[in-house]
Amino acid sequence: MEEELRALLRDLDALKQRPDPAAIDRMRERVAGMVTPVAVAAGAAARSKIKDMSAEVVDSNPYSRLMALQRMGIVDNYERIRDYSVAIVGIGGVGSVAAEMLTRCGIGRLLLYDYDTVGMTKTDAAVQTLSGINPDVALESYSLNITTVKGFETFLGSLKARSSDGHNTGVDLVLSCVDNYEARMVVNQACNELGQTWMESGVSEDAVSGHIQLLVPGETACFACAPPLVVASGVDERTLKREGVCAASLPTTMGVVAGLLVQNALKYLLKFGQVSPYLGYNSLKDYFPTMEMKPNPQCSNPACVQRQKEYMQLKPARDAAAKAKMEAEASAADEYSLPEGLVRELPNADSYQEPVAPVTSGAIDDDDLEELQRQLDALNSS
Amino acid sequence: MEEELRALLRDLDALKQRPDPAAIDRMRERVAGMVTPVAVAAGAAARSKIKDMSAEVVDSNPYSRLMALQRMGIVDNYERIRDYSVAIVGIGGVGSVAAEMLTRCGIGRLLLYDYDTVGMTKTDAAVQTLSGINPDVALESYSLNITTVKGFETFLGSLKARSSDGHNTGVDLVLSCVDNYEARMVVNQACNELGQTWMESGVSEDAVSGHIQLLVPGETACFACAPPLVVASGVDERTLKREGVCAASLPTTMGVVAGLLVQNALKYLLKFGQVSPYLGYNSLKDYFPTMEMKPNPQCSNPACVQRQKEYMQLKPARDAAAKAKMEAEASAADEYSLPEGLVRELPNADSYQEPVAPVTSGAIDDDDLEELQRQLDALNSS
Repeated sequence: MEEELRALLRDLDALKQRPDPAAIDRMRERVAGMVTPVAVAAGAAARSKIKDMSAEVVDSNPYSRLMALQRMGIVDNYERIRDYSVAIVGIGGVGSVAAEMLTRCGIGRLLLYDYDTVGMTKTDAAVQTLSGINPDVALESYSLNITTVKGFETFLGSLKARSSDGHNTGVDLVLSCVDNYEARMVVNQACNELGQTWMESGVSEDAVSGHIQLLVPGETACFACAPPLVVASGVDERTLKREGVCAASLPTTMGVVAGLLVQNALKYLLKFGQVSPYLGYNSLKDYFPTMEMKPNPQCSNPACVQRQKEYMQLKPARDAAAKAKMEAEASAADEYSLPEGLVRELPNADSYQEPVAPVTSGAIDDDDLEELQRQLDALNSS
Repeated sequence: MEEELRALLRDLDALKQRPDPAAIDRMRERVAGMVTPVAVAAGAAARSKIKDMSAEVVDSNPYSRLMALQRMGIVDNYERIRDYSVAIVGIGGVGSVAAEMLTRCGIGRLLLYDYDTVGMTKTDAAVQTLSGINPDVALESYSLNITTVKGFETFLGSLKARSSDGHNTGVDLVLSCVDNYEARMVVNQACNELGQTWMESGVSEDAVSGHIQLLVPGETACFACAPPLVVASGVDERTLKREGVCAASLPTTMGVVAGLLVQNALKYLLKFGQVSPYLGYNSLKDYFPTMEMKPNPQCSNPACVQRQKEYMQLKPARDAAAKAKMEAEASAADEYSLPEGLVRELPNADSYQEPVAPVTSGAIDDDDLEELQRQLDALNSS
């Protein structure tokens, strides 16, 4: 199209020198030829917003295969995903793929944080791409460095902020997809201060392993409870990485880690399956270690220690609620009556409290065994 | 831009009625304003081809983070990826993501097979997108149904075909990303006939689990050796799926399965790590079952039975080659001398054949233990 436009400029210059109706016709044709491809490209880039998620199987419905999760009994109410807000910190190899997955899943609101640029800011570029993929998602771009004082304040404020329509308060989950220790500690600090549940992700420098981890302030270990064994000391990790040598990166490892991260985010938000407390990925051996880490009472992070105290104080209330829920479920199970034609093989729990006809009991003697053997033989020979 | 072009058309129509130099200037400005964005968009969409993969860390080098795998000792020679051809059958949820990953990794040649359309054919649409991502990859589009007689012939022919530059013969690996039993059996048939190693992938109908599997004709179970327990009977599976109800689909599960598939393809092609014979993914519990399946001597597929015979016939040659390789490695290890300043803590294998000074041995008595205790106490108190 660039060549077409340049030809048009030459024609216009010539026309200025000398009136020429044939040249005007030629230009008209040229411009008309450009209108259709441009209109088609614009139409392909953006579908209109969709009000309700439907399970109807038609080409125009991008949600049919997601809503099918409900029909298949995996999630109770898939459409609830529209009520949730997720913050993604770091829009690099893992973060950009995670953002695309959540966008395709139709998450309600997505907050994107990064300080880097790719021509325009990384977060603005991501918003542009993602809004083309799914215009139903409310996207917020935060181009800032969370490790600066000012950046941290904006970050903290945005995690608490009410969205423009007044519907959402704060975020439901923070996903950390940053590539250095310092930034992870800052996300940890913010989430400990706010009591905000978050998930951490990481890929090794050699690109062949990675992990995800669930962090619930006060309940699980925070990032400072069990710091990594090797950290950069006295130098800026990011400078270290960008000058001359660079860490390895594989689209495959990034895709697997982002997939595991967002799958666990979906399980957490939509309440299905089991959320992994920690899941590793060793790609050389396809080994996936798991573990669970309790919080460290001597954690160096004061906000973590405070959340641990609160969590312990609320233990009796949590236990009582769990007991009440269990009893409610048991009583609901008692009321469950069998469909016609079916009988219980064993008495249910209540029946044990009713008087039962006395049963003769005693030790099994040889005569009983012989009688049993005869019955078995009869069954086998029939 | 569409609006700009339409305004230009109106101006041209007016100009035809009445010569107007000012109108020409206005049009010139309008067109000039469109040239830059179009040129920028075109530039962003396609970089020029790159002759050699370099490890140099500059913004213009898209391969630095892949070539870093070599510096980190993960792969011996990453650039060899350019010599390999991979065929992907089925460009749906898993196949399209797998194709993008291999394209970003800089695979030499990618053959894409699908019979479906999305406006244009799925394979042409994929080629268009992928060539924008990495113009270095030779992309081939096969819009055909491999389950028809004609489609199968073309499929088989393309897997054997020599590429246009005469460099590659056939393909190095086939990835099956189809969504039905019939198509899998066809890929199985083609690969058994050709003795072609392939990897199979699948995602469950409820979208929360999946698997990948390596199939080496004659050496591992083929797809017919251990058929699945439940298959569609008497109906076309694809019709079954498309009318009215549809299977669930999650971008996360697709991303994880595609990532595991392509990671194992890279391990197979570039000879690093261990290729998984079978790897399952249960996303509800983050459980990853593995297993190994030997071929079935009573397999219903005659080509599989033939490959099994050939594999057994070549066993003595394989064993001899393995033994020779082990001996060569052992003798290379003997020649390895330690750097200055280091001594061996234990004698090496050869030393065991040399006469060693006799060592007095005997049972430990109480006196020895008392002497040891004294030494330990002395160490602890110092």
